Amino acid sequence: MSHKAAFNVAVVGATGAVGQKIIKLLEEKNFPINELKLLSSSRSAGKKIAFHGEEVTVEEALPESFKGIDIALFSAGGSVSKQLAPEAVKHGAVVVDNTSAFRMDEDVPLVVPEVNKEDLLNHKGIIANPNCSTIQMVAALKPLQEAYGLKRVIVSTYQAVSGAGVSANKELENQSTSFLKNEEMQAEILPVKGDKKHYPIAFNALPQIDVFQENGYTFEEMKMINETKKIMHAPDLSVAATCVRLPIFTSHAESVYVELDRNDLAVNEIQKVLEEAEGVILQDDPQNQLYPTPLSAADREEVFVGRVRQDPDVKNGFHMWIVSDNLMKGAAWNTVQIAETLIKNKRL
Amino acid sequence: MSHKAAFNVAVVGATGAVGQKIIKLLEEKNFPINELKLLSSSRSAGKKIAFHGEEVTVEEALPESFKGIDIALFSAGGSVSKQLAPEAVKHGAVVVDNTSAFRMDEDVPLVVPEVNKEDLLNHKGIIANPNCSTIQMVAALKPLQEAYGLKRVIVSTYQAVSGAGVSANKELENQSTSFLKNEEMQAEILPVKGDKKHYPIAFNALPQIDVFQENGYTFEEMKMINETKKIMHAPDLSVAATCVRLPIFTSHAESVYVELDRNDLAVNEIQKVLEEAEGVILQDDPQNQLYPTPLSAADREEVFVGRVRQDPDVKNGFHMWIVSDNLMKGAAWNTVQIAETLIKNKRL
Repeated sequence: MSHKAAFNVAVVGATGAVGQKIIKLLEEKNFPINELKLLSSSRSAGKKIAFHGEEVTVEEALPESFKGIDIALFSAGGSVSKQLAPEAVKHGAVVVDNTSAFRMDEDVPLVVPEVNKEDLLNHKGIIANPNCSTIQMVAALKPLQEAYGLKRVIVSTYQAVSGAGVSANKELENQSTSFLKNEEMQAEILPVKGDKKHYPIAFNALPQIDVFQENGYTFEEMKMINETKKIMHAPDLSVAATCVRLPIFTSHAESVYVELDRNDLAVNEIQKVLEEAEGVILQDDPQNQLYPTPLSAADREEVFVGRVRQDPDVKNGFHMWIVSDNLMKGAAWNTVQIAETLIKNKRL
Repeated sequence: MSHKAAFNVAVVGATGAVGQKIIKLLEEKNFPINELKLLSSSRSAGKKIAFHGEEVTVEEALPESFKGIDIALFSAGGSVSKQLAPEAVKHGAVVVDNTSAFRMDEDVPLVVPEVNKEDLLNHKGIIANPNCSTIQMVAALKPLQEAYGLKRVIVSTYQAVSGAGVSANKELENQSTSFLKNEEMQAEILPVKGDKKHYPIAFNALPQIDVFQENGYTFEEMKMINETKKIMHAPDLSVAATCVRLPIFTSHAESVYVELDRNDLAVNEIQKVLEEAEGVILQDDPQNQLYPTPLSAADREEVFVGRVRQDPDVKNGFHMWIVSDNLMKGAAWNTVQIAETLIKNKRL
């Protein structure tokens, strides 16, 4: 491990929705960069992207692109990661991967810095960034787990289209425009680009994110279930998820029910723990109609929690509403945060 | 009780979103009408509405309007019902009321015909139509309760703006248009017309429907909790709700978790019960991406259920996705259905 003052950084998928946010954050956070390499598919190679006042030309991502790179931030889809992340590691780079390609691999840490940054110490070259809807949930649940013990989680999501990429944003925009003009809506991307059928998302709700598994759950739901247990080191935690795509451009919201180990807790104790939690902002004042919404959380780094209340019939059961920008904490910010934490811990 | 062949019918709130659907259904269903009286506020009086090829002039709703009326279908807000429904009853009419004014009164039956039509036998003049989000949920839960016994329900809703009236529809339309033109959105109606603050609903999600109660739940959530127990005659059923307003014009969707009394059931047994349930259509074939959505359920009378699956960790726990047109089964159709059932049972 090197103890450099500045690093050679590659961003793979530099022209995508998450890639662009990563580049913006590297700039805003003054990430200690020696050289920035922006990589993409051959289709987008040649584009220029501004960084600290200079133009950086996007290059095609190839195995040899990673020569001399210290850290590579991948966000170009699972197949690109599967092919190129091992190449980057071979060249000595540490990879932070935003796809689901390696998340459940036993020797790949799956990290939300506020929750389990200690797992970074054991990385073997690849570190996985969890699924967007998982990240914001565990950021709020971890402090409750630590304070009171956690038995059970049931989550229903309200997810933005930007999680499905720039083309899904465009689809929502086009369909909304058509609908408002009384014209027919064209559906070609959502719910899942590669799946057989497509349905309009504008003024609609689609209870399918990613493809269906044998057990009737979608892959997105299984990601939430499995990743939550891994990140929180809680293999026995009961987790169930229903994931729904909505006509929202930015930020995922989640209606979350938790059962704690203790049944002598009041709402204000739960609120206090959340208020003091790293990376979490409590916005919870019903009498003043204060609660987070997708629009209010957009472009923010934090995870926002509101509507905390006790179950009417179950003493150790609490309901809450968790919102965060899916491209920020859910993707780009968590990725950059992992990179920052690696530097701080001299694991780069 | 008269045993007439045709009835004098009054629709109160005839120019509202639900009132218009009621009139359309009375026509489509060939409801046995002798005289149709359309009533509204003084503001809308004088408008003409077509019915079976003739124009009916809307009149101002006054206490004396109900002279000679056999059945009055109220859908003009709680304060109008509180004032005029007792007047209608005094004049000998039976009232089916769409507001929350009388729903929890001990001597007012709260009825979803597929669930508890026997409660109609004991009416004392006023019958309450439940809250839209409650109706569609109990229609799907009742057959499961009967077949297997029901312990617990946790619901997160995905609700259309039309539940807040025609002006909320207009607000979503205007805000969507503004947003797509990069103009500022004006918020004056939602989440709750009479509340202090208003937030944009376009491309957003608002975790507030109706006003907040002392306990941190909204009135909409408490309606779902209390009405479900009353309709299902299950005072000990554990029910919790999170109600969310979304940028959808028509149909409410619900992510519902149930715990049954039996823990030896397979998903296909649950599906079979729902498939055979009155008023319910099962649309559940994940491999062919078949599930209900707000758009697919719009303008339909039935309650649609999909995404039925077992909880990964709790043997007697099942998750499902329930969708129905909130103005149809959630309001107008359930109202007309109650009126039809009263006639069939000679309770009019």
